[in-house]
Amino acid sequence: MRAYDLILKKRNGHELSKEEIDFLISNYVENKIPDYQMAALSMAIFFRGLNKEETLNLTLAMMESGDTVSLKEIPGVKVDKHSTGGVGDTTTLVLAPLVAAAGVPVAKMSGRGLGHTGGTLDKFESIPDFSTDLTIDEMISAVKNTGVAVVGQTGNLVPADKKLYALRDVTATVDSLPLIASSIMSKKLAAGADALVLDVKTGDGAFLKDLDMAIELAKNMVEIGEGAGRETVAVITDMDQPLGKAVGNALEIEEAILTLRGEGPADLEELCLELGGQMLYLADAVETVEAGKETLKRLIKDGAGLEKFKELIVVQKGNPSVVDDLSLLPKASNLISVKTTKRGYIHKIQAEAIGLAATKLGAGRETKESIIDMAVGIMLEKKVGDLVNVGDEVAIIHTNEVADSSKVKEAIDFILEAYEIKEDAIIQPKLIKGIVDKTGVKIY
Amino acid sequence: MRAYDLILKKRNGHELSKEEIDFLISNYVENKIPDYQMAALSMAIFFRGLNKEETLNLTLAMMESGDTVSLKEIPGVKVDKHSTGGVGDTTTLVLAPLVAAAGVPVAKMSGRGLGHTGGTLDKFESIPDFSTDLTIDEMISAVKNTGVAVVGQTGNLVPADKKLYALRDVTATVDSLPLIASSIMSKKLAAGADALVLDVKTGDGAFLKDLDMAIELAKNMVEIGEGAGRETVAVITDMDQPLGKAVGNALEIEEAILTLRGEGPADLEELCLELGGQMLYLADAVETVEAGKETLKRLIKDGAGLEKFKELIVVQKGNPSVVDDLSLLPKASNLISVKTTKRGYIHKIQAEAIGLAATKLGAGRETKESIIDMAVGIMLEKKVGDLVNVGDEVAIIHTNEVADSSKVKEAIDFILEAYEIKEDAIIQPKLIKGIVDKTGVKIY
Repeated sequence: MRAYDLILKKRNGHELSKEEIDFLISNYVENKIPDYQMAALSMAIFFRGLNKEETLNLTLAMMESGDTVSLKEIPGVKVDKHSTGGVGDTTTLVLAPLVAAAGVPVAKMSGRGLGHTGGTLDKFESIPDFSTDLTIDEMISAVKNTGVAVVGQTGNLVPADKKLYALRDVTATVDSLPLIASSIMSKKLAAGADALVLDVKTGDGAFLKDLDMAIELAKNMVEIGEGAGRETVAVITDMDQPLGKAVGNALEIEEAILTLRGEGPADLEELCLELGGQMLYLADAVETVEAGKETLKRLIKDGAGLEKFKELIVVQKGNPSVVDDLSLLPKASNLISVKTTKRGYIHKIQAEAIGLAATKLGAGRETKESIIDMAVGIMLEKKVGDLVNVGDEVAIIHTNEVADSSKVKEAIDFILEAYEIKEDAIIQPKLIKGIVDKTGVKIY
Repeated sequence: MRAYDLILKKRNGHELSKEEIDFLISNYVENKIPDYQMAALSMAIFFRGLNKEETLNLTLAMMESGDTVSLKEIPGVKVDKHSTGGVGDTTTLVLAPLVAAAGVPVAKMSGRGLGHTGGTLDKFESIPDFSTDLTIDEMISAVKNTGVAVVGQTGNLVPADKKLYALRDVTATVDSLPLIASSIMSKKLAAGADALVLDVKTGDGAFLKDLDMAIELAKNMVEIGEGAGRETVAVITDMDQPLGKAVGNALEIEEAILTLRGEGPADLEELCLELGGQMLYLADAVETVEAGKETLKRLIKDGAGLEKFKELIVVQKGNPSVVDDLSLLPKASNLISVKTTKRGYIHKIQAEAIGLAATKLGAGRETKESIIDMAVGIMLEKKVGDLVNVGDEVAIIHTNEVADSSKVKEAIDFILEAYEIKEDAIIQPKLIKGIVDKTGVKIY
């Protein structure tokens, strides 16, 4: 078998067999197939696509390219959640303890932030002394003891995806749906969960601007999950504005705690209930998704979710007092009001621009080496549908810089540009746009 | 400017500007753009194509990537000829002296053979002591003195094409018409001729099997030539069988000499007259292509072409006596008759299989390092349209091996498979299928 012939085959629109895909991935990981051949193949896949079977086989080949995690030691159905990436997405911070409080084990591997999107690990580490640096064994034992753990990726998981993604990133072949789907799903399958709930973001702030593309990606991923024997549900959600109010590490932890207290932003709570309801349903903890939502509402009301959050913090060596005393979280020295110069209704809040503004302030990484300021970020005081007048405060910047620093000025510009304000009123967009599962696609 | 953005631009179907193409090629040659990005770009070009302006700009950027030859010192219009590659193509051997005999200077840079196609340099070097190893200055002075020289490529001509072609060769991106056109034309333009006659082969034995594709490539190349200010004519010719009878280095020299004596195969003479007539016309040596053909016929008849061949051999240090005494050329020790086992009319002779058979015998290179046996090869005694009976000789193998050697047996198998013999009679296919020039496409 030669890589050349397989590039030609795909280029000419033919299907690659399981053996051929295994050959490509295993030899690529071992550096026996050079980057230039894989780049040509990726571009051919961009144009020709991969069918359902090829996409599954690619995902499995990538999953098998390195270590895989076994969660068998943990009793019960392990359900993982994945978001395709948004700004101000605090759902994992809320759901990890809340779902665990419902008796469903949560063994969560997360990543760090880069560019305009934040990372769950960074957010948790804004809790004083909180450590995400657990081995797989430590994670499993933590989940067995307290039902929940959130850790960084350890071991050599899915090296094929690391290598291939880095290549796609510099050859303009990232935005191929089957390649995106196999990249995400190979990592999720390797992380060992039995079932998956996927949050597929769509809208101006997501990398899939278009609803049809989001549905297509969701279908691809559900097919892979089901093909690999892991029940999978995708929730398609709106990213025409950041989720919740907080963008920034400690600010999002604060928002998560408020949400677990029942005092969080409505959109964040709604999404947490939907995703969590699906997780409980896939874990066979409830009869219906609706019943799952009701369970979670009760766990918020009676404080069990908040209590589980404290347990999570304790098991990961952090200070659980932050849950009762938010002033123990890192705080920025300056709060700067961002005031609009327009009058009208907010139609969109460009999530990417808000994310970039937060990165400018030091909440995110511009490069992998950047050091994050846990305290800083942005609170969005006005959201889509709100009516504003000239001079109204739309957001508050939390910063350790002085008000007239160039970074703050840049952030203000980004924020004001992010707000699309028009004269005509707007109906609140639906947050949850649809569900894709093995039975098909439902659009609301 | 970043290579990434230009790959994305082309992938999305947009036009690359002259500045962008210059950036890509100059940085690629300097190794500042890695192979994997150029591989992705090449595949994007395979799918999206290049328009007329992009193709011209790519050609010029490649041409300018290294040295270019100036033939200004040689008086008159310098016309070059190029063939897209066939088997048994002896036209350059005939045309170089014949066109020079008509007073049109011929400064010819040629290549060596690889795989199933032979190379003009190898063929000339089968003349005892003939040297193609001239510097550019020596070539120019030879042309000034005798009107003709045939030399190997010297200097650093079109390094961008060398690098890009080697990459395309291993990434399944060779068969893109604009990339083929720019590869050929960048080399022709760099070699310094004022006008170009292109022999575009089509049919089973050519890499463009399809007439429409050949026309398209011809149009691409004529547009580049005209865009670069060099008058260009493409002749589209049949490769459903090898040209002439001889396949092999000394055998083709012998055939060329016979053709210059007026005793060559009809198809070879016809093509030489057509290509040579076009060359004389582009060189302003005649009023019409027809007049050019008449001139060449006269130069064959009166022996002027043959005389010029002797002068060419002398100026390149070879033994001119071969022209009068063919026995001075390298001769194989064994002549083996290849007899058909079928009865019927010859419909096709797969040129590639014949070329491979000749390579097996040692007439061509399997790898760049292979050493050629100048004497060996194949004489095709029957051609398309001929009626044969079981046991008739269709070809003669010239070899220095014994008759029952594995190489000879393999060659016989290749040759017999190459002959497509069917019961029904066949009309002789047209050798010259059409002409493409700045006025448009004429198909006969």
